[in-house]
Amino acid sequence: MANNYFPIHGVLPPVVTPFTPEGKVDLDAFVSNIEKWNDTGVCGYLVLGSNGETPYLEEEDKLELIRLAAQHAAPGKIIMAGTGLESTQATIRLTEKAAQAGAQCALVLTPNYYGDQMGDRAQIDFFTRVADASPIPILIYNVTKFTHVNLSPAAASVLSKHPNIIGMKDSSGNIAQLISFMTHGLDPEFNLLVGTASAWYPALAIGIQGAVMALANCCPRECVQVQQLFEEGKWQESLALYKRMFPVNACVTGKLGVPALKYACDRLGYQGGAPCSPLLPLTPDEQQQVEGILKNAQLV
Amino acid sequence: MANNYFPIHGVLPPVVTPFTPEGKVDLDAFVSNIEKWNDTGVCGYLVLGSNGETPYLEEEDKLELIRLAAQHAAPGKIIMAGTGLESTQATIRLTEKAAQAGAQCALVLTPNYYGDQMGDRAQIDFFTRVADASPIPILIYNVTKFTHVNLSPAAASVLSKHPNIIGMKDSSGNIAQLISFMTHGLDPEFNLLVGTASAWYPALAIGIQGAVMALANCCPRECVQVQQLFEEGKWQESLALYKRMFPVNACVTGKLGVPALKYACDRLGYQGGAPCSPLLPLTPDEQQQVEGILKNAQLV
Amino acid sequence: MANNYFPIHGVLPPVVTPFTPEGKVDLDAFVSNIEKWNDTGVCGYLVLGSNGETPYLEEEDKLELIRLAAQHAAPGKIIMAGTGLESTQATIRLTEKAAQAGAQCALVLTPNYYGDQMGDRAQIDFFTRVADASPIPILIYNVTKFTHVNLSPAAASVLSKHPNIIGMKDSSGNIAQLISFMTHGLDPEFNLLVGTASAWYPALAIGIQGAVMALANCCPRECVQVQQLFEEGKWQESLALYKRMFPVNACVTGKLGVPALKYACDRLGYQGGAPCSPLLPLTPDEQQQVEGILKNAQLV
Amino acid sequence: MANNYFPIHGVLPPVVTPFTPEGKVDLDAFVSNIEKWNDTGVCGYLVLGSNGETPYLEEEDKLELIRLAAQHAAPGKIIMAGTGLESTQATIRLTEKAAQAGAQCALVLTPNYYGDQMGDRAQIDFFTRVADASPIPILIYNVTKFTHVNLSPAAASVLSKHPNIIGMKDSSGNIAQLISFMTHGLDPEFNLLVGTASAWYPALAIGIQGAVMALANCCPRECVQVQQLFEEGKWQESLALYKRMFPVNACVTGKLGVPALKYACDRLGYQGGAPCSPLLPLTPDEQQQVEGILKNAQLV
Repeated sequence: MANNYFPIHGVLPPVVTPFTPEGKVDLDAFVSNIEKWNDTGVCGYLVLGSNGETPYLEEEDKLELIRLAAQHAAPGKIIMAGTGLESTQATIRLTEKAAQAGAQCALVLTPNYYGDQMGDRAQIDFFTRVADASPIPILIYNVTKFTHVNLSPAAASVLSKHPNIIGMKDSSGNIAQLISFMTHGLDPEFNLLVGTASAWYPALAIGIQGAVMALANCCPRECVQVQQLFEEGKWQESLALYKRMFPVNACVTGKLGVPALKYACDRLGYQGGAPCSPLLPLTPDEQQQVEGILKNAQLV
Repeated sequence: MANNYFPIHGVLPPVVTPFTPEGKVDLDAFVSNIEKWNDTGVCGYLVLGSNGETPYLEEEDKLELIRLAAQHAAPGKIIMAGTGLESTQATIRLTEKAAQAGAQCALVLTPNYYGDQMGDRAQIDFFTRVADASPIPILIYNVTKFTHVNLSPAAASVLSKHPNIIGMKDSSGNIAQLISFMTHGLDPEFNLLVGTASAWYPALAIGIQGAVMALANCCPRECVQVQQLFEEGKWQESLALYKRMFPVNACVTGKLGVPALKYACDRLGYQGGAPCSPLLPLTPDEQQQVEGILKNAQLV
Repeated sequence: MANNYFPIHGVLPPVVTPFTPEGKVDLDAFVSNIEKWNDTGVCGYLVLGSNGETPYLEEEDKLELIRLAAQHAAPGKIIMAGTGLESTQATIRLTEKAAQAGAQCALVLTPNYYGDQMGDRAQIDFFTRVADASPIPILIYNVTKFTHVNLSPAAASVLSKHPNIIGMKDSSGNIAQLISFMTHGLDPEFNLLVGTASAWYPALAIGIQGAVMALANCCPRECVQVQQLFEEGKWQESLALYKRMFPVNACVTGKLGVPALKYACDRLGYQGGAPCSPLLPLTPDEQQQVEGILKNAQLV
Repeated sequence: MANNYFPIHGVLPPVVTPFTPEGKVDLDAFVSNIEKWNDTGVCGYLVLGSNGETPYLEEEDKLELIRLAAQHAAPGKIIMAGTGLESTQATIRLTEKAAQAGAQCALVLTPNYYGDQMGDRAQIDFFTRVADASPIPILIYNVTKFTHVNLSPAAASVLSKHPNIIGMKDSSGNIAQLISFMTHGLDPEFNLLVGTASAWYPALAIGIQGAVMALANCCPRECVQVQQLFEEGKWQESLALYKRMFPVNACVTGKLGVPALKYACDRLGYQGGAPCSPLLPLTPDEQQQVEGILKNAQLV
């Protein structure tokens, strides 16, 4: 691994994007969240991930959010920015601008609209071009749930050797798939990050050290603590905490998705607010469901 | 159906977007194609469909393509523009600009990134907001192959009654699904368009009168003739022509996708050219495959 | 095509299997149904299809049902028996016994438990062995909905040339798939049968002449009439009847499945009765749903 | 949990069924395998699992295999028999006979042919009836890969409270799904067994203590040792061994399936032999693939 490499150890929330009632990005609320998360032990921030409702944001808003995160993050926090777009050229341009805005590294989504065409050869070509052109190191964002594309272990192995590709967020939650990546010749320094709290404890158990997970928006301390307890050898406590958080995560990343995550943020001291249309706010029934789950997990 | 309604009868190619070797949109080649298609009997053009590599285009290019199509289309041709984006607000803005650029109607993709959230309620809300705001009538673009979302017959029925939603392109190629839409209370004047040549003859047989299909880029006359023969009562000839074209369509819309469609355009007198990255140009082997299929269909 | 071949023209119900309240096969009810269907214009019977709850039947019951169907069918009716089992040897043995019991031809399911292993090579090998050994001609039963296996057009083409394989029931309801079979070098005399009423009219429109469909259990006359009207050139009437039946078919083959089909049989003059466990009888709510659909279709 | 309960701790191979060249079950080879496995540390045997090619076996062969396993297993080994069939009555009858033949417990597959009908209500009804009638305790066999049905955590929770349902083999390999079962109110004594070696180490890490896995046919000692090392606190060694075995497991349970598992058995000192038709023996190329993988894992 080349000189661009840096290790990622810890939890990054893929930060939510609050909106004003008029549907504009609420920059004050965003900054307020960052300042609050600064004290929770998270190791950095993913700005413009799926939970940030990024497909709904205009470019100028995207860059402003990166700038604000970089300015308000406590020293030492990693600033990672989601810059993947369908086109190679557009992805390169946005990655360059993200770097100028303060991103230390970029998380690049697998292109997916023409999913049938996005085999190994196309993905390797795409990520190589983006990595070659990018002023900052990139990580691959493999999130089949949203893209319906799944990067193969063989392609990941090839890409892991590129000096400017330093890791991958795999959001499958599938431990066997993570092991499959690990045992297919991945560069040993490559940061294989787990992309969902549903697999956090087992991911730690197989040697993974970093995570980007939605749940860290509303429960950052708990997500961080699972790892701390694990590393202190307190496995039973770590496992128990992970299990206690599991239903909360299922709720805010499952059927109810981002609107539920933002609702949970509101309930747990952060500013989530309403989602951007066409996402719908939770119905009263759905709110009750989330309430019940937060209560069961002893969070409210 | 309100005063915005107009019937769509005939074939529209979802026009390909040629690029220069430097990766810019090749406007001259685009105009040349339009002028050539003008003489083939197609009833109009879908600019910015899936086969136009729309997810790879910048907004200014999109608008210029609409303008050029509107200027160079022969009189009476329908100018339909694909304006769907993930966000409701962005879709509305682009639809407004498309109208100013000369689009008569807009084809709006079902939002799909957060597919689990895009149930009936969200889709109805989205399309209603877009239709309410749009200065031109809209059609729904249901293309599960790319979006992994499938609009329900119940939602289609509700939306078909909106005075500014005048139709739907269903690209499933699934005749039973088309009948399912038809028998779920669709507004009788609603333009239910078939979105793939793989179902063209059977779609005509069940009473569908309009189509938007990739194959009409490279074989517009044959696509038009299937309908003409059918309407003249020459069913056997129509069916035979449809069957002769079927493998060509399977090739240019199946595994090889847009790059094969553009290659077939090049071979059949239009300007396709190379696809935009991350789509890869055909390998020599793949080119041979397409050649063989065009030969079998007596097109070269 | 060799001397075993015979053409199949018309509609065969895949007959339901009535059970006594004690869970035994109700042979009297079965015979009563056959005798009633004899007058409806159906061209034969598929005994032991999916709608016959065949996976729940013991071998002796299977053979008795074939015998009774052969004895009580009106002269000239085709007696087709479902004899596919997972193992090649077991399938051959059951096919031989079915022939002795009076079956004129056998419908053989694609093996499917080890679906990943059931590629073209395995399916071709399986059907060739069964056809080589069978004293009666066989047809392939391709029903992806239940098997999660889909025979490829290439494999179907190879198998269609076997002198003892005279046809295929394709239950996908996917007209494009039927055309795909037709245009991949299928033997011209091969009986390509449509396996669901959801595609009956469009199947006729593309030249298919035979059908095995669940709906013909409860609405045999209507299924037969769609074809008669079509062949008399009364397309509009045929299409209208097909559309009127479409929601009924969706109900009895869709989410509510065999229990709903049997309920509809009971309501429309045949003996369906309760399904075999683990299938559950319809709840009162589900019964009301079926009632509503039968009423809408003017059947009750 | 009632008096039928017993805890399952350790590894059970789902034993392969050898055949003679004439296609009969090779009972001698079967016994020879059992005797050899007796010395490997496995805690028992699953006779008639998916890897035993059970869907291809006649009832008399099934019962004879149970008898022989019971006779030749070393004292203290668990004899579990796969007795699930599509019909409730047939499952009950086979379970009774399996008990007479010497099975201590039965592994009952989720019924699946009419998959759309097999929701929670039907599955709960089915397993309750079987458990009520069974003279031996039963376990649920949830193997979506083959059945395309997935038992819900809610249904598993209800069933786990039945005094005669003592566990479940979940073959998904999906750790998040296992946790989902665990956190949905599963009876605390319920034996939640992992059904694939692809998840063995992470399953141990989350507290699972028993496994039924194909790989234990050819590599029983390694499978047992992963657990021993884990329980001795030698996590790094356990994890390393698990990772070394991972590609072997992927090979013998993935695309090449049972024929590859049997080939690996032959190569590693057991008697696998050829699979039963319609499964095909490995091609020379596929054999080379398996050889390479066994070599990489330092097994040959």
